[in-house]
Amino acid sequence: MFDKFREECGVFGVLGRADAANLVYLGLYALQHRGQESAGIASVTAEGRIVSEREMGYVADVFTAERLARLPGDTAIGHVRYSTAGGSMLCNAQPIVAFTSKGAIAVAHNGNLTNGEALRKQLEAEGAIFNSTADSELFVHLIARSKEPDLESAFIDALSHVQGAYAVALLAPDRIYAARDPYGFRPLVLGKLDDVYAVSSETCAFDLIGAETVREIGAGEIVVIERSGIRVVREARGEREARCIFEHVYFARPDSVVFGNSVAETRQRFGKQLAREHPVDADVVVPVPDSGVFAALGYALESGIPFQYGLVRNHYVGRTFIEPRQTIRSFGVKVKLNPVRELVRGKRVVLIDDSIVRGTTSKKIVNMLKQAGAAEVHMRISSPPTSWPCYYGIDTPERRDLIASSKSQDEIRAFIEADSLGYLSENGLLEAVRNEDDPRQLYCTACFSGDYLLKKSEPAAAAV
Amino acid sequence: MFDKFREECGVFGVLGRADAANLVYLGLYALQHRGQESAGIASVTAEGRIVSEREMGYVADVFTAERLARLPGDTAIGHVRYSTAGGSMLCNAQPIVAFTSKGAIAVAHNGNLTNGEALRKQLEAEGAIFNSTADSELFVHLIARSKEPDLESAFIDALSHVQGAYAVALLAPDRIYAARDPYGFRPLVLGKLDDVYAVSSETCAFDLIGAETVREIGAGEIVVIERSGIRVVREARGEREARCIFEHVYFARPDSVVFGNSVAETRQRFGKQLAREHPVDADVVVPVPDSGVFAALGYALESGIPFQYGLVRNHYVGRTFIEPRQTIRSFGVKVKLNPVRELVRGKRVVLIDDSIVRGTTSKKIVNMLKQAGAAEVHMRISSPPTSWPCYYGIDTPERRDLIASSKSQDEIRAFIEADSLGYLSENGLLEAVRNEDDPRQLYCTACFSGDYLLKKSEPAAAAV
Amino acid sequence: MFDKFREECGVFGVLGRADAANLVYLGLYALQHRGQESAGIASVTAEGRIVSEREMGYVADVFTAERLARLPGDTAIGHVRYSTAGGSMLCNAQPIVAFTSKGAIAVAHNGNLTNGEALRKQLEAEGAIFNSTADSELFVHLIARSKEPDLESAFIDALSHVQGAYAVALLAPDRIYAARDPYGFRPLVLGKLDDVYAVSSETCAFDLIGAETVREIGAGEIVVIERSGIRVVREARGEREARCIFEHVYFARPDSVVFGNSVAETRQRFGKQLAREHPVDADVVVPVPDSGVFAALGYALESGIPFQYGLVRNHYVGRTFIEPRQTIRSFGVKVKLNPVRELVRGKRVVLIDDSIVRGTTSKKIVNMLKQAGAAEVHMRISSPPTSWPCYYGIDTPERRDLIASSKSQDEIRAFIEADSLGYLSENGLLEAVRNEDDPRQLYCTACFSGDYLLKKSEPAAAAV
Amino acid sequence: MFDKFREECGVFGVLGRADAANLVYLGLYALQHRGQESAGIASVTAEGRIVSEREMGYVADVFTAERLARLPGDTAIGHVRYSTAGGSMLCNAQPIVAFTSKGAIAVAHNGNLTNGEALRKQLEAEGAIFNSTADSELFVHLIARSKEPDLESAFIDALSHVQGAYAVALLAPDRIYAARDPYGFRPLVLGKLDDVYAVSSETCAFDLIGAETVREIGAGEIVVIERSGIRVVREARGEREARCIFEHVYFARPDSVVFGNSVAETRQRFGKQLAREHPVDADVVVPVPDSGVFAALGYALESGIPFQYGLVRNHYVGRTFIEPRQTIRSFGVKVKLNPVRELVRGKRVVLIDDSIVRGTTSKKIVNMLKQAGAAEVHMRISSPPTSWPCYYGIDTPERRDLIASSKSQDEIRAFIEADSLGYLSENGLLEAVRNEDDPRQLYCTACFSGDYLLKKSEPAAAAV
Repeated sequence: MFDKFREECGVFGVLGRADAANLVYLGLYALQHRGQESAGIASVTAEGRIVSEREMGYVADVFTAERLARLPGDTAIGHVRYSTAGGSMLCNAQPIVAFTSKGAIAVAHNGNLTNGEALRKQLEAEGAIFNSTADSELFVHLIARSKEPDLESAFIDALSHVQGAYAVALLAPDRIYAARDPYGFRPLVLGKLDDVYAVSSETCAFDLIGAETVREIGAGEIVVIERSGIRVVREARGEREARCIFEHVYFARPDSVVFGNSVAETRQRFGKQLAREHPVDADVVVPVPDSGVFAALGYALESGIPFQYGLVRNHYVGRTFIEPRQTIRSFGVKVKLNPVRELVRGKRVVLIDDSIVRGTTSKKIVNMLKQAGAAEVHMRISSPPTSWPCYYGIDTPERRDLIASSKSQDEIRAFIEADSLGYLSENGLLEAVRNEDDPRQLYCTACFSGDYLLKKSEPAAAAV
Repeated sequence: MFDKFREECGVFGVLGRADAANLVYLGLYALQHRGQESAGIASVTAEGRIVSEREMGYVADVFTAERLARLPGDTAIGHVRYSTAGGSMLCNAQPIVAFTSKGAIAVAHNGNLTNGEALRKQLEAEGAIFNSTADSELFVHLIARSKEPDLESAFIDALSHVQGAYAVALLAPDRIYAARDPYGFRPLVLGKLDDVYAVSSETCAFDLIGAETVREIGAGEIVVIERSGIRVVREARGEREARCIFEHVYFARPDSVVFGNSVAETRQRFGKQLAREHPVDADVVVPVPDSGVFAALGYALESGIPFQYGLVRNHYVGRTFIEPRQTIRSFGVKVKLNPVRELVRGKRVVLIDDSIVRGTTSKKIVNMLKQAGAAEVHMRISSPPTSWPCYYGIDTPERRDLIASSKSQDEIRAFIEADSLGYLSENGLLEAVRNEDDPRQLYCTACFSGDYLLKKSEPAAAAV
Repeated sequence: MFDKFREECGVFGVLGRADAANLVYLGLYALQHRGQESAGIASVTAEGRIVSEREMGYVADVFTAERLARLPGDTAIGHVRYSTAGGSMLCNAQPIVAFTSKGAIAVAHNGNLTNGEALRKQLEAEGAIFNSTADSELFVHLIARSKEPDLESAFIDALSHVQGAYAVALLAPDRIYAARDPYGFRPLVLGKLDDVYAVSSETCAFDLIGAETVREIGAGEIVVIERSGIRVVREARGEREARCIFEHVYFARPDSVVFGNSVAETRQRFGKQLAREHPVDADVVVPVPDSGVFAALGYALESGIPFQYGLVRNHYVGRTFIEPRQTIRSFGVKVKLNPVRELVRGKRVVLIDDSIVRGTTSKKIVNMLKQAGAAEVHMRISSPPTSWPCYYGIDTPERRDLIASSKSQDEIRAFIEADSLGYLSENGLLEAVRNEDDPRQLYCTACFSGDYLLKKSEPAAAAV
Repeated sequence: MFDKFREECGVFGVLGRADAANLVYLGLYALQHRGQESAGIASVTAEGRIVSEREMGYVADVFTAERLARLPGDTAIGHVRYSTAGGSMLCNAQPIVAFTSKGAIAVAHNGNLTNGEALRKQLEAEGAIFNSTADSELFVHLIARSKEPDLESAFIDALSHVQGAYAVALLAPDRIYAARDPYGFRPLVLGKLDDVYAVSSETCAFDLIGAETVREIGAGEIVVIERSGIRVVREARGEREARCIFEHVYFARPDSVVFGNSVAETRQRFGKQLAREHPVDADVVVPVPDSGVFAALGYALESGIPFQYGLVRNHYVGRTFIEPRQTIRSFGVKVKLNPVRELVRGKRVVLIDDSIVRGTTSKKIVNMLKQAGAAEVHMRISSPPTSWPCYYGIDTPERRDLIASSKSQDEIRAFIEADSLGYLSENGLLEAVRNEDDPRQLYCTACFSGDYLLKKSEPAAAAV
């Protein structure tokens, strides 16, 4: 409903626990924020068959007790998905299950391939058929067509053909492979529950099932979870990493540790730095809930201006909502947010959000505060202006729809009708995630800068 | 619920009518008896994209107004399905939609391939991936991998590799191909609604939408429906035909014309011949509704014994039924059938059914009539003993579960506790469907005789 | 969908069986033809509380395993309902459960009260509140307000105030009362399953659960089922009975025994008498399925003209049906019926139905047969012209909408475009249900004759 | 899921707006926190009929576009409900619609009557029937039985017989009455949208639909909304008021103004006072989200200890949740809350919540923080110990289940395993809601003190 970038997927897998599908269900439930359109689980039956259930909807709605009962076995992977525009179809739901020359496999994938379209054209030309429009199906085809004699080498071979962003879990009847692309765009972590291993997009899923986080899977690394434990199939590569900075800005849950940093802490550092870069004489710091909460806390701590919950969120917001026939001012935003008049009336408000995408929602929120009596509204954004689309697994509008691509900061301020506007600088942002021990630039900031490490390749450019 | 052979599928397609998906919906609705497990429709949007909707359930339940609204365009094909044991999965629902080197296509298939398993193994070895366990996916792969330059020649090429029974509709953005296997196991007819063409498994679907039946598609023939009309892509072959006699015995709707004969009339001829072969001194002829109705009418007319509706069917039988915890005698059958005591009490009953598969249901019905007071129950079956499984698209039990494979007719009579038992002879059966103008043996009777025209080939035997 | 009179309700109850609600569910399932709009069950928990579940829909859809599990106890009653025009609301679903001065009770009612409106006005004036528009709520109010000291005498008292047609089951925590109005308009029978008693609108429900029919509850009789067995609370009265003849003409299931006669046999006698009254030179007798089947068998037996299934019914007809945007000739009827061309082509057809209400459907069916090639269509109706509405529990159109109220038989024939038309005479009809041992006129024929034994009383006329 | 007192109901109504049911739907949506078990709306059709829709479930799930379309008219009231133990039944959903001597009416009620049981017994003895176990039905009966000649005087009469807590909306075809009990236990406010009036349990519902809050309805006041505007039917009484203090402690939404005070501000004042009463040397103030957020902000502001979001709430928590077979530590709480390890590790935490009911959840949260590394956990509660059940419309456990009824504060501290525990004093609490202009004690604090202004009357004590 809101005007935000969208994470496309979450991945979870576990091997060696009697109620594997149930644990995957819990894991997906904790990763629900990474994809609210469809959910799916594939598990391995006692006979070694792979069965799966996928459906449009929230994890808790899709997975009834009946459906979970159709997913027996001690090994399972799962997936939540928010698809890109136009692609909201059941056939795109994951995990993808396929019968191949390497046996039955299932794949759950988070990311976008830059040579996906090219590979697809080439594989089609060679006789492959595609049942969906998702990049993820490419992994299955490349494995199936690999000349390598076994699944493991075929998977390595397959990964050598794809370019772009991916964190992927590959289920075979007796093991789960987990891999990240060489740039490490998308996160993937290893966990341990008693003596069995699990893999997840974020650590918050481990917290829910009572597992410990073991370590991040490295950029370019392939790990396999087997009954005997884990084994590194391919070492992480030493390449320049390109971790998605937006995981810290907005996507990940604040209680997760992503790319080695606490998300909540990092967001507070963004807020503190923002206060240093864009101070303002004001009475209260108010976050746009929930995306601006931690940055607002940081801003308040650094500036000394009191933090206030001047906007309250409705916790019962669902997917469907029947609009009234007669227009209600700012209705779309009001369904989700309501100002606390008494906390903002007559106050100079510092309003904190993580980003401005199209600007329409920010404008409504600024107006809502002014109608509620705010004397001034100073918008502060805990990231730089987002002016470039992402090709690495984030659903972003076209460049022309990003307000920062065509308007100056002052024009944006005028558009959203704020009294002042300040964005966190790219340097400030990177400073907040800098690792003392590893001075390399480790993050992708293409959505701010337009500097793409990997270009989207033209069909002709692909080579298998 | 009942102990019958099961037709596996029904197919319908139409091109050139504004509300194509709606007509396909009606066609599938009329073909519902051919598959009650899943239903699906694929249509071509104004932009030439193929969209599809498939779901487990009855046609009228699956296709809500909302779902049909997601299937725009004037060209569509559809499918109803009853899957074989173990394969009741959504991924097996049809039509199968795939993006291939020959463009986007959709396939709806009725039948079973005898070299399906072999082809599958071979294609997997070559790198193909399968998303289902259905033979039908093979058509798509063979088309996609064909070296032929266009879809039409690729379809012909694909058909040259498959062996077995099939009636298939292939949807491309601008046309629909309809084809039958060279033996003509499964039916497929062409119809015309005003000036547009349609294809259907049975003629009863044309009746519902107000279309006229044009002609049967010949054994081995390929026809294409285009905007300009129909065109024969490949002529019917002169081979020995092997039409499925069970379409007349049980599967097809009585108001259909199948393989050139009225099903209702043919079943009455079966009944008349049965009366000649197995006369009995009795008071009433009672059908097992609805499978035995027309044969019973024939038996009554020939024998002069009055036809009576001594068993009444519950019309509200649905898919789910909650059984009582305490046993009720003959409960499973009673949910569907109830005797009319006053019509059978003290009577010598000729009970007519189309076939006996396992014998358990027949036994319950005989007992039900005796409990209702019937003095004698003489079972008459309007087909020969079914003692061999079918490999051509019919869901039959394993040979060991067919009562006629291990028991003599007298043993069967004893098992079902009837006073006498008579089966229609194979000659009598074939006589009833004989065509004066075409003296060839045109029917497959393998389920009675075990004479299979096409053997199920071993994986090794396949050659693409 | 079809143009028929509608039965309004079915009632079932059982006491003393561990899975009472499950048996009631089965009973309602067998009575589904008496009401397809809503279904409900009330049961008594081990603690003596009455719980209930009611919902719009078919019995098999409403009562999932979950819902039945919410209806524990060994005593339960149930109800299926087809409400009259305008009243299709959940609040009208039954059984009605109420907490009263006589304890908690539940009521399931089949019928219509002629002084219902008057009683309602009077009770409202005295401070009663009504939650529905159903007559059935009156029973509960009258019991609650009775000055009698206990439930039994209060029930007798309540019945003394109501006039009209009713067969009613009253559930108290430890017993079930079953009562019929003094004219005995609506049927109600007692059954026995092993050693426990049950009550049902029709005997077919006993057949399904394996119970025996004990006897009809007499007109005006009140019976109570208790743990100790049954007890007659009030004897049947000797008044002139007025059994609904339409139960035999159309409503009841053919496998039921209603008012002491087999429905199937009675309908055949109607058909035989019809053949005597309205013979015609013809080739085949074709029933409108399923309403005309037994009368057609009788007509065929008497006339010697062969019975043929010239119209086939679609068994998958459901509640919802998405019509095509473009008109299809006779579509509404085609969804349900299809002619078997080969059986009617060139034939002079005697078409048998049970009644003509508005005439529109009959016209479509006659036309459908002519389009299928019938040379002549002679309509024969197994009851007299229905020209008066019913006030006794049957949903009939307004008098002006009954074709026989304004048109002569020849005008009706012309309207439906039949070659001839013959109705069974009222004498012929009554002859067929005459009981040798009881020469009294026992049936209500008001819908044919307009002779109402009980008038609908005006509000002012009621007296409590 | 959590261990809290429960508000029982929310009420909303509007008259004179074309899409009345839609506005009520929005109002209920904003009041969802006041009742999550069932939702209902009654509206008046153009013909003056009252129609209603009620269902178990959330507002957004119950009210589909289809359902809203069945609620036409420009006048409507609605209700959300959380029923007390055992009463979770559809028949208890509101609004209650009844046909009475005063015409058709609908009632939506928030509260509990102290003489409800007595009145019920008496009315039953007089012949009234009850369809539910809800007090709310009493209003309808008392109106229906009133000797007063019209609805208005009958409503006044009815209110004179009931004792206890109520805020009630009464819908008649041409107006809506809104009334509060003389003690003013439960809130009810008047709003205005353009030129039409609305009534709501809380002001947050007015914010959503863009209405202004006009004023609170006074204790004992009756207001009627008519087409001509509002009219005071009965003035507010001067009695000692007994507003529910728990609306401020926990129930109401923070963005509402309740009893004249901003809820958010009031909770902050509770937190500040708590900091003054129970200071502690600590590193961070962490709220239990969302109930402790505003008090925590107040505590942090007053104490100077930084506020931190050390516990994160999962926003996708739904009604159903499939638990894993194998035990996961603190699972029940983890589904909803997760600590942010990095924010609490090694820290001395002041944990703020609004109340402790049974203590089990508090214990789990304290433990969760300790497992996450908190050095110390000091629990601070922004209300006094709750040791008495409520009879005025709040769902509270039995006294024996309230931990504060049997344990000293130190025993409670030991039970929840906190390092220290402090409750806000009753004086501190009341100070925070004190109105300078009105020095009377205006609040009910019976759940803390056991001083009940109105006792629950015994059946014998009632007099109508």
